[in-house]
Order: sequence, then structure tokens, then C-alpha cells
Amino acid sequence: MDASEFRRRGKEMVDYVADYMEGIEGRQVYPDVEPGYLRPLIPTTAPQEPDTFEDIINDVEKIIMPGVTHWHSPYFFAYFPTASSYPSMLADMLCGAIGCIGFSWAASPACTELETVMMDWLGKMLQLPEAFLAGNAGEGGGVIQGSASEATLVALLAARTKVTRRLQAASPGLTQAAIMEKLVAYSSDQAHSSVERAGLIGGVKLKAIPSDGKFAMRASALQEALERDKAAGLIPFFVVATLGTTSCCSFDNLLEVGPICIKEDVWLHIDAAYAGSAFICPEFRPLLNGVEFADSFNFNPHKWLLVNFDCSAMWVKKRTDLTGAFKLDPVYLKHSHQDSGLITDYRHWQLPLGRRFRSLKMWFVFRMYGIKGLQAYIRKGSNKLTKALLERINNAKKIHLVPCHLRDKFVLRFAICSRTVESAHVQLAWEHIRGLATELLKAEKE
Amino acid sequence: MDASEFRRRGKEMVDYVADYMEGIEGRQVYPDVEPGYLRPLIPTTAPQEPDTFEDIINDVEKIIMPGVTHWHSPYFFAYFPTASSYPSMLADMLCGAIGCIGFSWAASPACTELETVMMDWLGKMLQLPEAFLAGNAGEGGGVIQGSASEATLVALLAARTKVTRRLQAASPGLTQAAIMEKLVAYSSDQAHSSVERAGLIGGVKLKAIPSDGKFAMRASALQEALERDKAAGLIPFFVVATLGTTSCCSFDNLLEVGPICIKEDVWLHIDAAYAGSAFICPEFRPLLNGVEFADSFNFNPHKWLLVNFDCSAMWVKKRTDLTGAFKLDPVYLKHSHQDSGLITDYRHWQLPLGRRFRSLKMWFVFRMYGIKGLQAYIRKGSNKLTKALLERINNAKKIHLVPCHLRDKFVLRFAICSRTVESAHVQLAWEHIRGLATELLKAEKE
Repeated sequence: MDASEFRRRGKEMVDYVADYMEGIEGRQVYPDVEPGYLRPLIPTTAPQEPDTFEDIINDVEKIIMPGVTHWHSPYFFAYFPTASSYPSMLADMLCGAIGCIGFSWAASPACTELETVMMDWLGKMLQLPEAFLAGNAGEGGGVIQGSASEATLVALLAARTKVTRRLQAASPGLTQAAIMEKLVAYSSDQAHSSVERAGLIGGVKLKAIPSDGKFAMRASALQEALERDKAAGLIPFFVVATLGTTSCCSFDNLLEVGPICIKEDVWLHIDAAYAGSAFICPEFRPLLNGVEFADSFNFNPHKWLLVNFDCSAMWVKKRTDLTGAFKLDPVYLKHSHQDSGLITDYRHWQLPLGRRFRSLKMWFVFRMYGIKGLQAYIRKGSNKLTKALLERINNAKKIHLVPCHLRDKFVLRFAICSRTVESAHVQLAWEHIRGLATELLKAEKE
Repeated sequence: MDASEFRRRGKEMVDYVADYMEGIEGRQVYPDVEPGYLRPLIPTTAPQEPDTFEDIINDVEKIIMPGVTHWHSPYFFAYFPTASSYPSMLADMLCGAIGCIGFSWAASPACTELETVMMDWLGKMLQLPEAFLAGNAGEGGGVIQGSASEATLVALLAARTKVTRRLQAASPGLTQAAIMEKLVAYSSDQAHSSVERAGLIGGVKLKAIPSDGKFAMRASALQEALERDKAAGLIPFFVVATLGTTSCCSFDNLLEVGPICIKEDVWLHIDAAYAGSAFICPEFRPLLNGVEFADSFNFNPHKWLLVNFDCSAMWVKKRTDLTGAFKLDPVYLKHSHQDSGLITDYRHWQLPLGRRFRSLKMWFVFRMYGIKGLQAYIRKGSNKLTKALLERINNAKKIHLVPCHLRDKFVLRFAICSRTVESAHVQLAWEHIRGLATELLKAEKE
């Protein structure tokens, strides 16, 4: 395919994308296919000779679309929202064309610098404390991670390195393994499964702090666990506070948990993956109070701030805490500005080496919506429904939901996901659920 | 921006992308900017009211492009190639529109199933042993990771879990920390820095095996290290063999290293990130002989197989080795087909939870080039130049290279990166390097 064919096919694809988005309400939100549906529909090996573009785009409707769960359908209320907007898609086209791998400043200066500045823009939108911003001479700053899971893991590894160095400085004979055996991380029993996974990967204990009646981690339960573990010779080093838990969007009490972390010299990471976008509205910003106690903070613009996946925003107060944990400098990645102090090499801030030009998406979205447009989008409201009808609802395939557990209760989560959802869709869904509930109650009585 | 504006702007962006690719030879490959160039060029905060699309696209040329290192310029010979092709860009547009997060089968069946089948297609292109393919009932299979770094880390963590469980089954009193303290991983002294990093993250020792005169890891050096460490009470558990090292594309001797790993019951991971694409040509396939001894194998189609970043292909012989290391099943991610044995939930194969529909890129590229087209692309040849002129070359900014160390030698790496590079560009670069070398030699004589 040469440039002139790309011009033609690219424009057809733009129309296909627009048609898909405009017609998505008419597609069944959850597919009818059974596991293994796809393999018999396509050849067992790649073709020797090229297929045509027409063949492929026809197969998209015949083979792919019948197996797609439509996350951007206004009837998709499962899991969590994943962001999508036209400006973000345009930016991704540009990102694909530039196709740079921005692991260091020199690998593409614009890729690194736009990211630093966009993370400052976003930090200011959230009114993050100055210490989290890079500015011209800050010690902190932001980085785009692929997911909140990676952000939690990166924070945990940085905290692990920091405490290990501190303890080894005090007692030079201590081995890393002897320290790791005693390290304990903490999160609420409502934290996302990726927190437990970060503990597994990092090879440290992770303890779940019982949450209170409102599913929040509070001072007393955390302090009790810390005291018990310290008395047993263990070393608390890391706390994850969740703002907006997956199951019910509860908030850990930052104003209680934060000062304890300061007092105990424990790294505090805040995971606001799901709810964090709301903090750009002044009326929701008080929910973030206490962020000043944290060492690192993360939320996902790719969930609720109109920036397509992947774009998970993470800030730290001391960038050297991250770079200290990961910095390895083989000569083939060195460049002449490296030690100038002015530049950022993002490969030291993340797990993988490679990274795309993801800040273009933020730039396009922030500019084309403006802060007011983004705030208006957040304020469109949300809903929670609470009756266990899951099987009938999902078998009917008119709407799609997933459940969660709140302690012993089996709860239906009803999340507003698609950018195009309107209150009319929600009402239709609610009437549908009420209808099925009535049928169910009748059936049980008979 | 509504769908009709997206139709207009999307088509403008398609033309911008095609213009960029067609005109890239005329752009200076490495930018003139100094660190910090970008911040003064844009506002300190996001705009309150929306900007127009024209504002933004004008700023792309004014603000972004002057800071871009053009990885797809035919004069870009630095680092490593990053793949780019029009079919791949078209697939990414579709991926952005569907915008699903394919962490489980149910989250979008097409996303999971196309990935499994594409990894089988690619595995067959490489003539991987049957055990690495998913097929209809295989125990192995492939997964798309974001980068080779992640693949190495995932393999190391899976190996760590496997050996820990085996030792704890034999001696139930053993703690994880007591085991981890003794675990040792190995790679050649030529392995990529990400291998060392995986050891750091995984909290295990990583030892560098001295490579031979051809920069290859051989049986004798590995066996010697294993014996010494076992005698010291350590536990060897993981070996990374590199096929195509970063510095000089040397190959570890798989046919020697493989049988040792089998004998010692040590996990063998093969990192062919850079060179692996060549194995689709029968004449290069013998370089992969010995892959049958490996537990996991990885290479990057996003380097040299025309699939845009990110697309790092990883296969394992036993998928339960991966899923066993990472499997956590909160109820909000469960679905009814989960335990059917027929389906794949890729969240258990990788570090992050979220994942894009990346197999679309493979599908578009494999079909639109065909295996013959891909083989023809690989066979276009490569170049290595060997004289220390780096500073003059990079100051002149006509071409761009990075150096490496081979033992004590400082070597210029000349990598064929851009898809559009032709022998004419290489000749121009070679004449340029010869010219600068002649000047340098003259200057030194005077």
C-alpha cells in the first residue's frame, strides 16, 4: 500500500469509524458468539500472497464485529467506562504516523516535553499540590503509564527500593532478601485486585485493612495493623489508599490515613483510577483533600476524561524515587544532554523501555474540549441500581452489566460508560430492569 | 466535535499523515531544539474554552515537529528500527474506534480470539514447535505484550512462582523470602539492559555469563556458573538467551544452552526482540534452532515486521505457568464462560489489566503484505559501519546514529530503520560518513 492508496483507504476508514460511532446504539451491546467462534471463520495460516483491503474491511463486519462487546454503546454499563472521543482518535492517527519510541529525551524531544507539560496542565486542573508538578525546576512531575496496575506496581517497587536503601544504610550487613521478608504493604479490603497483584509481583506481603461501614479505610484499623505488625518484627513500608473503589466507589479517608503514613515514614500511593477525573470540578475537589500527604498519585484519563486508552496519569513528589529504582544506563541509550538536569528520560519512570507519543491525545482533548467542556462532561451524572437480576438481564442482551460483592451482598453495578449515553438510554434500561424484576418476582411466587 | 466534523477532520488528518510520510526524507532527521524548548511555546494551563482544530494542527507544525526525532526518516540509523506501515495505521484507527479493553474473553470475544489466532499464524510463519501454538486444544499459545522488557519480566516472574511452588511442595516449611534469597537468573553479558531490570524488579540475583569471542553465550561458561552457584547453596532458576543482541546482533548458542536448561530444570526464555522477524525467511530459520528447549520465546513485530508499536509477540509452552503466577479473580471480572477451558483471559498473561485490540494490526499487515511480501521486506538487507565519528556525524545532523560498546571497542551502530529506506539513502549516508572521516583524519594530521 503506497501513500496514494493510504489516502483513499484512510478516508474510507474515517467514514467507517464515524458510521460505527453513529450507529453503535443499533448494535447489540453484548455478542451472541460462543468461545471458539472465530477460528473456523479464518484461514489456519497467513496468506502467501497479499489480500486486498476490500477483503479485509468486509471481514471486519463479517468476522470481527459479531464478536465485539461494544464498550461505547450507550447500553454498556459493565466493568467501567473507557474513554473515547474524536479529538483523541485524531491525535492517535498522528501518534501512529510519527511513530517515535520516546524512552529518552533525545529519542524524540517533543514526545517527552509535551508529556511533562500536559501532566502539569492536568495536575493544575486537579489543583494538585505544587510539589507534584514538574514546572521548570520541580523535584516532582507526572508520567503517562499504560494502566493504574502499572502505576501501583511502579510505586510499590520505588517504595521497596527506598526502604531497602534506608535500612541498609543504617545496618550495612542486611541483605535485600532479609529486608523483603519483613516488608508489608497495606490497602483497604475494597482495593482493586491489581494492588494484591503488585504485592505478588514485588514479592512482599500485602495486608487488607478492614474497611468501615461505608467501605472506607480509616485511621483506627490501619494503625492497629501497623502496631501489630511492627510488634511482630515486620516493616510497614507502603500504603495504597483508594479514592473510588471498583465495587461501590467508596473513598478511603485520606485525611486520617495520610498523617499516619507521614508519622510512620511509609510511602502513600493514591489510586483514584476510576473516580479521579471528577476532581477537575471544584465541587468534587474536596474528595481529594489529603493528597498532600501522598508520595504518588494516579488516575486514569482513559476511563472518564475522554482520552482513549491507554493514558494513566501518575505523579510523584520526588522523581528521584522512581528513577532511583529503575535507572540502568547502557551506552546505546545514552545521549549528550542526559546529565544536564534539565531533561527527563521517561524510561526510568516506568516498567517497559518503549513508549508511544501518548501526550498528543491529552493535548488534542484538553484543547478541543477546554476545561469547561471537560467539567460539563463529568457533571452529566451517574446511577446505581441494586437488584440481583443479572442472569435475566444479561441473557436478554438488551443491556449489559457486571456484578460485584460488597461484603456478603451481591450487587449489580450500573456504570455510565459510553460518551454518547443520554438520560433516555438510562430510563429505557431502568424500565427494562424493572420489567424483568417484576417477571422474576411473579415467577418466584408461582 | 461531532461525527460530521470528525469525517472532515479525519480526512484532513489522513492527508497530513500521508504528506508527512511522503515528505519525511526532506525533514532533518534529528531536531535542533535544546532541552526545555517546548514549555515556553505553549500556555501554562489548559484553555478554559475550546480551541479550534485549525489552531491545533497549525501548532503541530510549529511546536511539535521541530522537536521530533524522525524515526521513519530513511536517514534514521539510531537505536533500532520501529515498524510502521499504512495497513497497520489503518488497523489502529479501527482499534481506536472499537476501543474495547480486552482483559477477558467476555470483555470482547473478537479481541481475545483474533489475538490467539494471529499468534498462531505468526508462530507458524516462524515454524515454532507445535507446543507453542494454541490450536484448538494446545497447552501453549501466544500473547501480545507491550514490549520485550515486559515479556522478559513476565517470564521471570512465572519462573520464580514455579520454582517457589516446587521447592515449597518438597519442603513445606520454606518461606518465599528464604527461597528468593537463593534464586539466581542468568543471561549473557551482551543481554539487553531490560534483563538486568527484570532481575531488579523481581528481587532476584541476575548473573552475567561472559560471552565468547563472537559475543555468544556458550555451554561451558554457563555450566561453570551454574556449578559454582549450586555449590554455594544458590538455586539457578532462569536463563535468558538472546538471539540478536542490541550491540552487535550476536546470537547465544541455543543448541548448547538449551539442553543444559532442560537438564538443570531451569526456565529458558529466549529474547529475539530485534532479530526475530528474520526467522520468517527459511534461510534465516536455522538461527532459531534450539527454540524447542525453551519455555518461553519473544520477539517484536513492532521492530522489523511492519506492525506499528506496540506489538511484542510472546509464546509459552504451558499457559498455566503464566496464569498460575498472576491469576486473581475478583467477582467483577468473572464471566460465565470463564471455567469452560475453551477460553483465554489474557489479563492473566500480562502485567497490566487493560489491553487494546492490537491483533487487528497483525491481521491487516499479514493479510495486506502476505507472507511473501513480509519475507521480501526482511531480505532488503542491512549495513554496519565501524568508525568512531559519532560526534561529527550527529552534529552535522544529516544522518543520526547511536554508538555501543563491544567489550572495549566503541562502535557505531548503523541500523536500517525506516520502512522507506532505499539503497540510495544508505549510499548517501556512507559517502557522508566517508567525507567526515576523511576530514577528521586530515585534521588529526595537521
